[in-house]
Amino acid sequence: MNQNVLIILASGSPRRKELLQQAGLEFEVVVSDVKEKITKTKPEDVVIELSEQKCRAVTDEFIRKTPKNIFDLIEKESGKIMIIGADTVVSMDNKILGKPEDSKEALRMLMSLSGRSHEVYTGVTCKVLQYNSFTEGLIETDSFSFYSETLVNMYPFNEYEALDYISTGEPMDKAGSYGIQGIGERLVQSINGDYNNVVGFPLSKFMKELSKREYVSYGDGSSM
Amino acid sequence: MNQNVLIILASGSPRRKELLQQAGLEFEVVVSDVKEKITKTKPEDVVIELSEQKCRAVTDEFIRKTPKNIFDLIEKESGKIMIIGADTVVSMDNKILGKPEDSKEALRMLMSLSGRSHEVYTGVTCKVLQYNSFTEGLIETDSFSFYSETLVNMYPFNEYEALDYISTGEPMDKAGSYGIQGIGERLVQSINGDYNNVVGFPLSKFMKELSKREYVSYGDGSSM
Repeated sequence: MNQNVLIILASGSPRRKELLQQAGLEFEVVVSDVKEKITKTKPEDVVIELSEQKCRAVTDEFIRKTPKNIFDLIEKESGKIMIIGADTVVSMDNKILGKPEDSKEALRMLMSLSGRSHEVYTGVTCKVLQYNSFTEGLIETDSFSFYSETLVNMYPFNEYEALDYISTGEPMDKAGSYGIQGIGERLVQSINGDYNNVVGFPLSKFMKELSKREYVSYGDGSSM
Repeated sequence: MNQNVLIILASGSPRRKELLQQAGLEFEVVVSDVKEKITKTKPEDVVIELSEQKCRAVTDEFIRKTPKNIFDLIEKESGKIMIIGADTVVSMDNKILGKPEDSKEALRMLMSLSGRSHEVYTGVTCKVLQYNSFTEGLIETDSFSFYSETLVNMYPFNEYEALDYISTGEPMDKAGSYGIQGIGERLVQSINGDYNNVVGFPLSKFMKELSKREYVSYGDGSSM
């Protein structure tokens, strides 16, 4: 695989970082303070909106003040930089479940998920920057957003199982109070859709987008 | 979570090991040489049969000659040992796809999966042993098998993408020539069912079985 763009992941999530590594992509992590502002109501619109805000914050920083070391990593005249923002929410009965405030709220959330199905949405926004010799700085040359939806079917479980799970500490920084890639997987019976989307990043859809737009390309395997 | 049994994983697969660790289970890995013999034709029967053979090989060894250090790990009079065998196959058009012999076969397999759906089956067999003071050795006190089936929907991809993937070396030790938890995830559009079953072990179904049979139990979270 040839990667024709320098990727900047605008997310501090260790799970998103692991997923990009798993795909064999080279990237840097740059996180910026964002004031998240939700104006939409539908979960697919909310995750696109929030991913756009996260991407925008880092993109604006790059445009305002190009990091000095960037041109050690890419060709100044021809290189491209792609900044990625992502946001994941859990949705049930038209209500969005975020991260729990405390173990009481985690228990309430988990019991509402028990024995039922819910949706997980992740929105992704990518903005591509390139050096412009006229402005002597970076300008935006491409921007696209997409989302992925996965249905998650939970096993029925009781308060003991939920409390036992909460006592591991895992639910506290997770939308919907569970992590499918951790101990929380024991609550999940099956999914319909993309697994990595539930983890926090729809990796295979992202790879398709990169390939379609020629930000990655595939050889003939002759390096075998 | 209280684990009331010493688990022995009769599989050398690093992926199965990672999954048991992810669930927070304590276990040892003991692998035995097995002559795999398939007498069945349906994939669900084949994976049960092969998982039984893998489990049986280690179980027989334990019964024939109890490992000395076992009773350092569990109470001799009351402790239980559970030996787990597992086998995963990919099935399409009533044909079972195993591991590829070489990159040519990997390419043929991958192209047959492109743009289509296939099933992944994992069979699991568990046998439980306990010390018997009359025979002064281990005897089998429980045995159960189950399988899980996951539908995997692949993106359409071309020979270049397949060859590029084969050049990473990842397909060579994988049933069906791809690994969903590695670079191969970029080929997978979505799944219906349990993700970990495709990785190689239906972890949440296994945890349900352990809980139902009281090999694990959950507290009230009071250790929080």
